[in-house]
Amino acid sequence: MSISTTGRVLVTTHPFGEIDRDPITLLETEGIPFTPNPFRRRFTEEELAAMIGPYEALIAGTEPITEAILNKAENLRLIARVGIGLDSVALNAARRRGIAVTYTPSAPSPAVAELTIGQMLALLRKTVAVDHEIRDGAWHRRIGRRLALMTVGIIGVGRIGRLVIGHLKGWSPRVLANDLKRDPDFSKQSGCVWTDVDTIYREADIISLHVPLTTRTRGMIGERELAMMKPDAILINTARGELIDEAALAKTLRKRPAFSAALDVFHEEPYFGELATLNNCVLSSHIGSTTRDCRLRMELEAAQEVVRYFRKEPFAIPVPEEEYLNESAENSL
Amino acid sequence: MSISTTGRVLVTTHPFGEIDRDPITLLETEGIPFTPNPFRRRFTEEELAAMIGPYEALIAGTEPITEAILNKAENLRLIARVGIGLDSVALNAARRRGIAVTYTPSAPSPAVAELTIGQMLALLRKTVAVDHEIRDGAWHRRIGRRLALMTVGIIGVGRIGRLVIGHLKGWSPRVLANDLKRDPDFSKQSGCVWTDVDTIYREADIISLHVPLTTRTRGMIGERELAMMKPDAILINTARGELIDEAALAKTLRKRPAFSAALDVFHEEPYFGELATLNNCVLSSHIGSTTRDCRLRMELEAAQEVVRYFRKEPFAIPVPEEEYLNESAENSL
Repeated sequence: MSISTTGRVLVTTHPFGEIDRDPITLLETEGIPFTPNPFRRRFTEEELAAMIGPYEALIAGTEPITEAILNKAENLRLIARVGIGLDSVALNAARRRGIAVTYTPSAPSPAVAELTIGQMLALLRKTVAVDHEIRDGAWHRRIGRRLALMTVGIIGVGRIGRLVIGHLKGWSPRVLANDLKRDPDFSKQSGCVWTDVDTIYREADIISLHVPLTTRTRGMIGERELAMMKPDAILINTARGELIDEAALAKTLRKRPAFSAALDVFHEEPYFGELATLNNCVLSSHIGSTTRDCRLRMELEAAQEVVRYFRKEPFAIPVPEEEYLNESAENSL
Repeated sequence: MSISTTGRVLVTTHPFGEIDRDPITLLETEGIPFTPNPFRRRFTEEELAAMIGPYEALIAGTEPITEAILNKAENLRLIARVGIGLDSVALNAARRRGIAVTYTPSAPSPAVAELTIGQMLALLRKTVAVDHEIRDGAWHRRIGRRLALMTVGIIGVGRIGRLVIGHLKGWSPRVLANDLKRDPDFSKQSGCVWTDVDTIYREADIISLHVPLTTRTRGMIGERELAMMKPDAILINTARGELIDEAALAKTLRKRPAFSAALDVFHEEPYFGELATLNNCVLSSHIGSTTRDCRLRMELEAAQEVVRYFRKEPFAIPVPEEEYLNESAENSL
């Protein structure tokens, strides 16, 4: 493949400017030369290391931007993350090199929240398995469960968790919530009950993860936690694959046919592993944020930060100080 | 197969007493002998004609109970329908023979409404197709749409349509509604806008059917109506298969890849026809009512009507007079 390396901006996220040309038009109008993602998928660390040298700014996906990568990024001054997660970026290493980092934390949330509710309803009624069965020539009137009668546990009550709880209002299930910080006002307004995670693992019919990936949350769902869950519990992960021990989950799904899971994120993406062979697991291709409106807003917000860099204007959404502090704290754990 | 014909009650619905034994226990406690469905699926007209002779009461599914069947039902005094639809029962022919008909119109509604929202979200994000793709070794980050930004058209604003509109409140999309009778109070309270069906076909991103099957509604979605719909419209049918011209729908799905449909009901069930070969169609096996709670309530309510018959007590939910009048009116169209 002949890869163009003209331009001062490297776009590693994918897709970019495909749903709507606006983000590309913005860069063109401003006269900012850029190189589109030549692979049309997530960069590996090696691919990024090989390409990053000449660029001043990155319009970045979820590929790893480690300290080793930054050592090759002699000209880099801005990482504009398209999305909310910062687990892929070595924040403090970037700061030490004078590289600014911006992100788009609000843009993807509505799309992730809608997907989450859709996967809850799909697993409660086993609709994906039923569709497979009919195409295979089998007609079973499977018995499902109703969302309105479930106990739903939401772990992580930030931008996305709050929207999920908002959508659930139309059903009024019992909602258990957990976050590092309790928010009594939100609880009062939404009717959710704050509790510890172990109570959620034990009591919830549906458990949905909406926390960032940090040292604290990596592998938070392992054998111990899965063993605590109800035999017919539903586990939903639209956050980050590394929150779950995939091997332990696969084992649980094999041993407990009434248990089910919906996963949009994986340790390695694209994912074609063992979980894709199990009928009580519904898989999707990291499409949490990929609705037309949310994806466009994410790409546009990131492109606007690049424009601000070249105009020497202040950034709209620089990564907040607490994210740098969190990272330091984790590294010292 | 050796078929038991002991008993005074024939159960044609399936499943019955499987989710929960309560309905069977009720009949046993009352000393009412009954014959369970020997086929474990919907009876054909021929099968029912061959078996119905000796029975006084039917705990009925959706199999056709035509005038020809009733001519063989010399001992029949009660048809206790498990469910809401009465399109399968020759109501006035039953009345002329002194056969009472009861049904369970409220019991299935919450389950149907939940499935409907689940299939809307599934089609907006193409989650069923994405799951198939990953299992087949392909990873595409498909671009979806958000329910909150859609115009949703609800045709039929009865028990189920109202619940669907209630669930949508958590998203606040624009809701267009149509029914034979307008209900301004409901419209005010729910925020839906009453309009004619052609406006719904033209303007809605999602069209969901919640009308009974009558002479007026049979084939209501045909080539003309499909041609009016947006190229990327979503059509959902959790009501009755015969509302839609299946051949016309299959043609539309083949010609317009952005168009999609979710079907829970078909002209013939079990269904294994052409629609099951199309990727922009999601199929389910008439599971609208089959959640544990709703199915149990339906079976129990029907069994209780049978108990009332043997105790010579008045029925709790006899089919209302207007259903008999509707049927006469339709037959004279």
